[in-house]
Amino acid sequence: MQPIHPDRVFCSSSLSSATGNGLQNVAVEQGSESHSRTTGQPSHTERIMRSPAGLAAALPLLLLALLLPAPAVAGRPLVAGNRKPAPSEAAATARWLAAQNTWGVLSTISSDLSGAPFGNVVSYSDGVPGESHGIPYFYLTTLDPTARDALEDERTSFTLSEFPLGTCGKVDPENPTCAKLTLTGKLKMVDHKSPEADLAKTALFSKHPEMEGWPKNHHFEIFKLEIENIFLIDWFGGPKPISPSQYLEYGRDQGSVMFL
Amino acid sequence: MQPIHPDRVFCSSSLSSATGNGLQNVAVEQGSESHSRTTGQPSHTERIMRSPAGLAAALPLLLLALLLPAPAVAGRPLVAGNRKPAPSEAAATARWLAAQNTWGVLSTISSDLSGAPFGNVVSYSDGVPGESHGIPYFYLTTLDPTARDALEDERTSFTLSEFPLGTCGKVDPENPTCAKLTLTGKLKMVDHKSPEADLAKTALFSKHPEMEGWPKNHHFEIFKLEIENIFLIDWFGGPKPISPSQYLEYGRDQGSVMFL
Repeated sequence: MQPIHPDRVFCSSSLSSATGNGLQNVAVEQGSESHSRTTGQPSHTERIMRSPAGLAAALPLLLLALLLPAPAVAGRPLVAGNRKPAPSEAAATARWLAAQNTWGVLSTISSDLSGAPFGNVVSYSDGVPGESHGIPYFYLTTLDPTARDALEDERTSFTLSEFPLGTCGKVDPENPTCAKLTLTGKLKMVDHKSPEADLAKTALFSKHPEMEGWPKNHHFEIFKLEIENIFLIDWFGGPKPISPSQYLEYGRDQGSVMFL
Repeated sequence: MQPIHPDRVFCSSSLSSATGNGLQNVAVEQGSESHSRTTGQPSHTERIMRSPAGLAAALPLLLLALLLPAPAVAGRPLVAGNRKPAPSEAAATARWLAAQNTWGVLSTISSDLSGAPFGNVVSYSDGVPGESHGIPYFYLTTLDPTARDALEDERTSFTLSEFPLGTCGKVDPENPTCAKLTLTGKLKMVDHKSPEADLAKTALFSKHPEMEGWPKNHHFEIFKLEIENIFLIDWFGGPKPISPSQYLEYGRDQGSVMFL
């Protein structure tokens, strides 16, 4: 297991870029108490974690990190099944969140509300159970504002939380160790006669069986998010720098990623 | 209990306005099979619910509706404790969702992403346990993009789902009977020396105890959503027409609403 950097800080100061450019997007703490990840000097967060209250909060997390499985073979996907990947494995964690959840919030630029953001609860699937591919597919109708918005302005974000999975324990949903993922990009309608639409329907209907019976005259269509930017927080220290290709290609060279 | 209109349709065709102007914003189904709420004619959805598959899906919901408590006195808040209000009580349902949840997705116009929408997982509180007021308060830092975005463009939406509460049973998260609420408005920083900030901190820290120990030098501030528009789906038939005043004043004349 890779070491967990003790000087990662609590919150983010920037979005990670889509270019996956290493450490430059790792947020640093405001104020004079911050130190670089590379200095090895004790940080403010480290001192907090050494305080009684901080230690009490940090201990379960450290125990969790220690209990996470080490990879059997270097380079192989860290996880099989539904265990949360280690914080050092950002792409694995993002893919795990996408594979484990069944719903999230899709945010569009609202045409009804003069360009205000509008978040809507939607179901999705990134693959049949046990074979996730990372691309979220949706089953939406233009009777609903989200699909209408996207047809006017494709810019969309899709947000997932670890909290409803039940694996955050007593940690607060806003605590950075309770992972959160925002995929931002373009929401595109998929040609319903394409092979991709068939795959997406199989992915959606296997995880959301009632969708298949939803009213035909509501004209549900398959949409997908073309991911351009990834925002993942799963530990202290701000968002992790993951590019869409790192996210989408995770585990591909070892075959399908067996997330349940 | 008010009757449940059988001809409400599955999805929405418009956002409800902030003016609470009655039925004009109730979405109607696309195509020739729709009927007005007031005609009493059987609708497409009614026919779906009479089909074997539709009936199987609808029966647990109808049973749930029948099992919900009738108000002891007309005009009093429908709910005490954590029972879901009846679908006919839109303001009660919206307030119940806001009182029961502890986290949601706050969507802003992203300054980092050139104006794309950006949804972020955040914790919130609309009051101390047992005394909800409907206004969501947040504890945010400008180390995080959401607070920074709001300081540049206040337009924000806050989205909640019934699904993580565990009361949707086997109904899909996107099914309209699994309630979803989007509050849209302006995200404002609250003066940290104001009495409102003290109340908000009490509300937040009572539901999120670890917040009180979060790093001081991250400069967390209280924010609140000034609600301008409410989008609630909790049954077939599209979004419910609720104005912010109907939402905020729900139960006020009977004292505090005792949502747990």
